[in-house]
Amino acid sequence: MEEPGLFPIRKLAIVGLGLIGGSLAIDLRRLGLASKILGYDSNPQHCRKALDLQLVDSCSTMPDDLLLEADWLVLAVPVQSIEHVLDQFRPFLKPDVLITDTGSVKAPLLKIMLRPENSGFAFVGGHPIAGGERFGPEAAVSSLFEGKRFVLTPDQQTRRETLGAVRRLWTEIGSEVIEMDGDLHDRIFASVSHLPHLLAYATIQAIADSDSPEALEHSGAGLKGFSRIASSSPEMWADIFLQNQQPLLQRVDAFSSCISEIREAIVTNDRERLIELLAQAKAAKDRWVH
Amino acid sequence: MEEPGLFPIRKLAIVGLGLIGGSLAIDLRRLGLASKILGYDSNPQHCRKALDLQLVDSCSTMPDDLLLEADWLVLAVPVQSIEHVLDQFRPFLKPDVLITDTGSVKAPLLKIMLRPENSGFAFVGGHPIAGGERFGPEAAVSSLFEGKRFVLTPDQQTRRETLGAVRRLWTEIGSEVIEMDGDLHDRIFASVSHLPHLLAYATIQAIADSDSPEALEHSGAGLKGFSRIASSSPEMWADIFLQNQQPLLQRVDAFSSCISEIREAIVTNDRERLIELLAQAKAAKDRWVH
Repeated sequence: MEEPGLFPIRKLAIVGLGLIGGSLAIDLRRLGLASKILGYDSNPQHCRKALDLQLVDSCSTMPDDLLLEADWLVLAVPVQSIEHVLDQFRPFLKPDVLITDTGSVKAPLLKIMLRPENSGFAFVGGHPIAGGERFGPEAAVSSLFEGKRFVLTPDQQTRRETLGAVRRLWTEIGSEVIEMDGDLHDRIFASVSHLPHLLAYATIQAIADSDSPEALEHSGAGLKGFSRIASSSPEMWADIFLQNQQPLLQRVDAFSSCISEIREAIVTNDRERLIELLAQAKAAKDRWVH
Repeated sequence: MEEPGLFPIRKLAIVGLGLIGGSLAIDLRRLGLASKILGYDSNPQHCRKALDLQLVDSCSTMPDDLLLEADWLVLAVPVQSIEHVLDQFRPFLKPDVLITDTGSVKAPLLKIMLRPENSGFAFVGGHPIAGGERFGPEAAVSSLFEGKRFVLTPDQQTRRETLGAVRRLWTEIGSEVIEMDGDLHDRIFASVSHLPHLLAYATIQAIADSDSPEALEHSGAGLKGFSRIASSSPEMWADIFLQNQQPLLQRVDAFSSCISEIREAIVTNDRERLIELLAQAKAAKDRWVH
């Protein structure tokens, strides 16, 4: 088997040329980390755009024979699609291809990769903590991942050299690479990412549903910052919510309990209790979120 | 009676030298809109700081005889305190003083101003749509209100010249002044300001309460934008929530319904419905919030 940690990577395939896949392609080329980048995206318009923007050297809507020479396969498709993409692409892959991904939910994919048909691949899951509410290949930018965290989720199946190679790739790109258990990853990101997205959508809907939907015109900086993420892709976030169903529902319910406590303090005019609840939250925010 | 619209204002008193009162003082002086600015703040440290920063020409923790010469009184104290402050300051005010305020909730104050002991004053309520999570006199900055909306809430009692004078003041400061019924104001800001603040606090608490409170360390740009306002003053927001109790509770309950709908779609794995709900919210967001 060829050394998977060899840089520059001779041929690297990216499936999914959205914000993440496209921005990765830009950096790989800019930093000389891959000599040739093969692009795949089931959306023909994405494919055309990615070629126009010279994000990739080739682009196809379907797996093809070029894949036979790919040393790396990076799955940057919506989490819901990874299983289908793997089934489609598997027949075209060489057995020692290194597979990694950029999905926002890890446990379901880790389970899929344990299946006999996938367990032979050199694989490690990954998740760049970067993004934004814009999407599609035209949203791709240089240095999106610089200074951002990248979470690797190795398990017992992960080979040391696979882990090392993917770690090196994202380190070269400028990310701060950390490792985390896949289940813990999903619980943490249910909290800090999936829950806020869900709430941003619900907040906007609750205001739009009101008797004064024009209220949104009066939003100040607070709501703007708060609701920016409600412009994110509904399809992508629906898939993330469904893939991370249980951890997310736990956080939604914990959140509903917090709302109930605050609501109760407002209903009973309990100023002291209300201040206590808000001050606790402020303390946690000031301690952790910078 | 002296012309209340006379600029520069000879002597203007500001009660409450926090972010709003302090920033107003800076702009009044910078733009030459008031010849003398009398400061009042029940917190001696705020008073000292406001004098150190030369925000005001004098500062006292209590109403004093200087007030007898004040042509304008701007109440920039927490909404809950306005009634108490008015009772304290009333004996020191000349009968034709112009009173206005900067509070985030209007209906309760409008009711207070209709009482016999207050109804003689030239008064109009106001609310600058500006602020931030920092507070206290040291948070005061120049041009905080420039390009921001300022909502005036005149009622049947409001004299035309009072309305004109306060409108002119905030226009000179650079705000876009609009007029709105007080009750409508409170419903709208329950939606676009008070609800998001309440949710930001509850979100942080729900994450901090989880089995992985360190999750907050992993927050990306989404949660940062979403939760910035959870650093705001707990006392100030508790008071706003309590003052705007009914409109806010209505929005909280509408929000809880939206959460339930999304939750149901996740529980039943109804991808189509979930996408529909998120897409509706995204459309409202993209239409209204820029």
